[in-house]
Amino acid sequence: MLRKEVNDLLTQTDAGTPMGELFRQYWIPAMLGSELPEDDCPPVRVKLLGEPMIAFRDSEGRYGLMEEFCAHRRVSLWFGRNEEVGLRCPYHGWKYDVTGQCTEIPSEPDDSKYCESIKLQAYPLIKVGEVLWTYMGVEENRPPEPTWEFATVTPEQTVTTKRFQECNWLQALEGGIDSSHVSFLHSNELERDPLFRGAKANQYNLNDTKPVFDVSPSDGGLYIGVRRNAEGKHYWRITQWVMPCFTMIPPRADHPQHGHFWVPIDDENCWTWSYDYHPERPLTADERQACLDGKGVHTENIPGTFRPVQNKDNDYLMDRDAQKRGVTYSGVLGFGMQDASLQESMGPICDRTRENLVSTDYGIVMMRNRLRKAATALRENGDAPPGRDPSHQKVRSVSVLLEPEQNYAEACRDALLPEDGQPRTSV
Amino acid sequence: MLRKEVNDLLTQTDAGTPMGELFRQYWIPAMLGSELPEDDCPPVRVKLLGEPMIAFRDSEGRYGLMEEFCAHRRVSLWFGRNEEVGLRCPYHGWKYDVTGQCTEIPSEPDDSKYCESIKLQAYPLIKVGEVLWTYMGVEENRPPEPTWEFATVTPEQTVTTKRFQECNWLQALEGGIDSSHVSFLHSNELERDPLFRGAKANQYNLNDTKPVFDVSPSDGGLYIGVRRNAEGKHYWRITQWVMPCFTMIPPRADHPQHGHFWVPIDDENCWTWSYDYHPERPLTADERQACLDGKGVHTENIPGTFRPVQNKDNDYLMDRDAQKRGVTYSGVLGFGMQDASLQESMGPICDRTRENLVSTDYGIVMMRNRLRKAATALRENGDAPPGRDPSHQKVRSVSVLLEPEQNYAEACRDALLPEDGQPRTSV
Amino acid sequence: MLRKEVNDLLTQTDAGTPMGELFRQYWIPAMLGSELPEDDCPPVRVKLLGEPMIAFRDSEGRYGLMEEFCAHRRVSLWFGRNEEVGLRCPYHGWKYDVTGQCTEIPSEPDDSKYCESIKLQAYPLIKVGEVLWTYMGVEENRPPEPTWEFATVTPEQTVTTKRFQECNWLQALEGGIDSSHVSFLHSNELERDPLFRGAKANQYNLNDTKPVFDVSPSDGGLYIGVRRNAEGKHYWRITQWVMPCFTMIPPRADHPQHGHFWVPIDDENCWTWSYDYHPERPLTADERQACLDGKGVHTENIPGTFRPVQNKDNDYLMDRDAQKRGVTYSGVLGFGMQDASLQESMGPICDRTRENLVSTDYGIVMMRNRLRKAATALRENGDAPPGRDPSHQKVRSVSVLLEPEQNYAEACRDALLPEDGQPRTSV
Repeated sequence: MLRKEVNDLLTQTDAGTPMGELFRQYWIPAMLGSELPEDDCPPVRVKLLGEPMIAFRDSEGRYGLMEEFCAHRRVSLWFGRNEEVGLRCPYHGWKYDVTGQCTEIPSEPDDSKYCESIKLQAYPLIKVGEVLWTYMGVEENRPPEPTWEFATVTPEQTVTTKRFQECNWLQALEGGIDSSHVSFLHSNELERDPLFRGAKANQYNLNDTKPVFDVSPSDGGLYIGVRRNAEGKHYWRITQWVMPCFTMIPPRADHPQHGHFWVPIDDENCWTWSYDYHPERPLTADERQACLDGKGVHTENIPGTFRPVQNKDNDYLMDRDAQKRGVTYSGVLGFGMQDASLQESMGPICDRTRENLVSTDYGIVMMRNRLRKAATALRENGDAPPGRDPSHQKVRSVSVLLEPEQNYAEACRDALLPEDGQPRTSV
Repeated sequence: MLRKEVNDLLTQTDAGTPMGELFRQYWIPAMLGSELPEDDCPPVRVKLLGEPMIAFRDSEGRYGLMEEFCAHRRVSLWFGRNEEVGLRCPYHGWKYDVTGQCTEIPSEPDDSKYCESIKLQAYPLIKVGEVLWTYMGVEENRPPEPTWEFATVTPEQTVTTKRFQECNWLQALEGGIDSSHVSFLHSNELERDPLFRGAKANQYNLNDTKPVFDVSPSDGGLYIGVRRNAEGKHYWRITQWVMPCFTMIPPRADHPQHGHFWVPIDDENCWTWSYDYHPERPLTADERQACLDGKGVHTENIPGTFRPVQNKDNDYLMDRDAQKRGVTYSGVLGFGMQDASLQESMGPICDRTRENLVSTDYGIVMMRNRLRKAATALRENGDAPPGRDPSHQKVRSVSVLLEPEQNYAEACRDALLPEDGQPRTSV
Repeated sequence: MLRKEVNDLLTQTDAGTPMGELFRQYWIPAMLGSELPEDDCPPVRVKLLGEPMIAFRDSEGRYGLMEEFCAHRRVSLWFGRNEEVGLRCPYHGWKYDVTGQCTEIPSEPDDSKYCESIKLQAYPLIKVGEVLWTYMGVEENRPPEPTWEFATVTPEQTVTTKRFQECNWLQALEGGIDSSHVSFLHSNELERDPLFRGAKANQYNLNDTKPVFDVSPSDGGLYIGVRRNAEGKHYWRITQWVMPCFTMIPPRADHPQHGHFWVPIDDENCWTWSYDYHPERPLTADERQACLDGKGVHTENIPGTFRPVQNKDNDYLMDRDAQKRGVTYSGVLGFGMQDASLQESMGPICDRTRENLVSTDYGIVMMRNRLRKAATALRENGDAPPGRDPSHQKVRSVSVLLEPEQNYAEACRDALLPEDGQPRTSV
């Protein structure tokens, strides 16, 4: 249960808020690379951390992300002409480069330097993997570029999608940290979904509904260790949370690895990024297609948008009969929408003053504490928060069978913090 | 004309407001029984007096009404699994019984008693007639169960419907108390509608457009007596208002009796409950079908919802030509939607600081005064308000022809407060 | 760049605000005459300057404009019966004449005078040309009736349309004052649109994208003179702005004259009125049809409404391919929607604290100053503002070729302030 002040602190990310400042210390996913598929393609509206922006790719392949409105009289640059190394406002032809610098004001005299004084707030936008990342903080604190494994393996090994989610980012992240719900909400999905089925470990998930949480700090966030009894041993699943909003689902058998980024759009909406990758092999054609079809942790979206086909306006295509017959646990089909539907059902911003946490929420409690401390330390002392360092991002989630007396943090140290190219450990 | 403070007091019914506390002294209609048609059927979202709730019927036929969100992490229990004597949250399997008591937390150790400390706010939900009633106040003030005649006659004698109305409850109730509008708004409907036509008294309504109001207190609310001249006599129609929101339309000839409950959903929406019943005989098949088809005071609703087919998004299917030709008086067809359209047209909450009342509004003035006094007496002295006692609910509305010198309250005493099984008095 | 207080002052027009009081000094366009096509036709909802009103035309051809809600219990008179020289509330038959005076309360005794004390706030509504005009100020300050030439020429010479625009009135007006955007936003339209093409002067517009602004006060507002180089001479286009919200586009060749009124509905919406007329000749059938089809400065509206077919819900039917190929400059088709789309893209109320004006915005700066001074002088000293006098309205916009040494204000004095019937000057 949180006091209202703490709930506000953790859920609000506009500029100037403590969590807003914290988010502005990181590279965060802004767009799919495919949203800006070629030079001089149409600009795209992007809203992140409460800031309305416009993204474009110039004639020479540079990416730009800047405030949405022309500095002149505030026309939306979504109507802009993307041409000749710049985005031109359609009202009076003011032109901007990818840094937000105004490079031309056609109505000004030829010798005018006025445009040099005009610069829109802009942020770097870089492509790593299939994702365009931005860093919305001040230049002097800019961290090294992202090194997440899902984004740095070969294109054949990875696929990333995103969906629009109609709730605050934190309750979405909490779903990613809380692996105990798998045994309930997703129970019927495990052996049906093409990206999950056929793993012996699924039975470990299903057979022990009283997982024991053992959470410990990692350099960049937390190891959320969850132990289930399995054939006389302990089946450990260790979820990585890396600050501020990266989570990875421990693998099963030789399945691709699944995970998420949970990125605030504004305080009542977020992007749920979903990826599948395999550190050792290309994805099969079936695996790739399954991701694109919305299987696994992905969702099928309305064509031309990132809004899921199942959404709150249609009650997520709830099927009461399927729920009754046990085909689905909640009546909603698919991992991704099972999560999204319940996260959205909490309302735009979950009222945590009325929650009641239990031992399986221990990862969530630790996560909130760490975020809060980091936001406070940043604000009060200027301390750079964890999760910015490349080493913090070179992590994997792990699932293993250990003897009862083994400690997961010791036993899995190498698997959790792998060397480049190291084979994956999973059950 | 009301001062703003008084308008606010009368229109606001959230928990903690004076009128909210007053409403929480009564059994109020919450749902149709048909919304929970069988054991373990799907749960239903219900919002009353500003509180979002979930209703369900358990495996043993018990009804439950409790706050909508799981005590754990606030997932909506609308997604719940209704099974094995309880509603189970689909996120982590927490289970609740109809009293809101948490009975199981699967992730807890087998010997844990933690769930005993978890209880959702819940209210009793009981079936009387075709209606499920709730009492949202504290247990020690719980009144006797409802005894309204429409709900306690045999099922063959009665039919009840409800519609969603997009305005504050009070302006809807005021329409039910104000019988002077019948001669105008509904004038063309009287001889067309299958539930109203063919009564000689319709002509009394139409011929005297200057009714005289004679309002007097009843034990549970008010007698709103309205006198019209008719063939040398006085045609009296005496509407019952019983606190806080029950009204009954005086009968005509052998027609079924019509009436309403006006129940706040929140401050900008209400449920209009409509019933037809006959105290002495079964409804005919035609009468029953007419009610279900939206005739009389009922409305035709969009299938699968309680929103009328005629609604503010389509301007209530206003037909200017029918208005011009006198087929309808306002251009809107049907008693129910004639009322609802005008009540909604006042805006979400009518601005009574700008109204101008006349003698035909005397019933409305008296009603507001009585509500206000009762709310104040409850708040200041804890006085239980009128309308909770079974005898206050055993009332009928009456229409009679009296000699000019007769006093309606005396002449109709028995008809207004009938013994069980007493034949009805009507013209 | 404006301070927030100034932006608020200029954009807010509800009753009691400085700009609201200023607007209430003028006759403003309220409706098209065709919206009230015959005696006793249906009443129409009209919202202006934040006031919800109802307009009607009585049995004897008089126009009325009054507050929307019945004085009795606040039912919308949109449902009213327009009959026998008055609008009758459908709830209880209260009747109002075009002055807002209540003339009948049927439920009152025959000898009652009560209705004489009931009067709705009403404003005069008069027909001049195709337009119904209202004056929403106090009677003692009522100005002479409108004398705008577009409204006073013969019906054959003029056509007027209106469109609903989803933004504050001021950013819409600013588009009408700022003629420098023609060379950019509308550049591809000039030679395609049937109401603009074929004028030699179009090339003057297109060839010099660095117009020089020379703005000077007129009696009623401003002359916004814009100079472009053309074949060794100066091509001058002089836009008239007359307070508070009338603008006229300088003509080209023998084209009809185009112009606008920009009228606040509330602070986040406005009516854009568009007219075409020729002071010397009837419009041709093709010209008239082009206006009605939404060509020129007009728009094609959704049938039965004044909302454009291209609107923000469909991204104005943006065609990126047409933009890329230079068929349109912004991707949006048509003068009217090119303007509306960009004006709306600034948001409901443009944040002028973040604008950066240049020399081509000089007309806008002068306009804002004059409005602000007039609003302040009205409030502080009761000074009647410019633009109310018939002579202020008898103006034309002008386009001419002048020798470089000529001053436009002197050279064009007669053309800008023409005598009745004077031939038009244009290039």
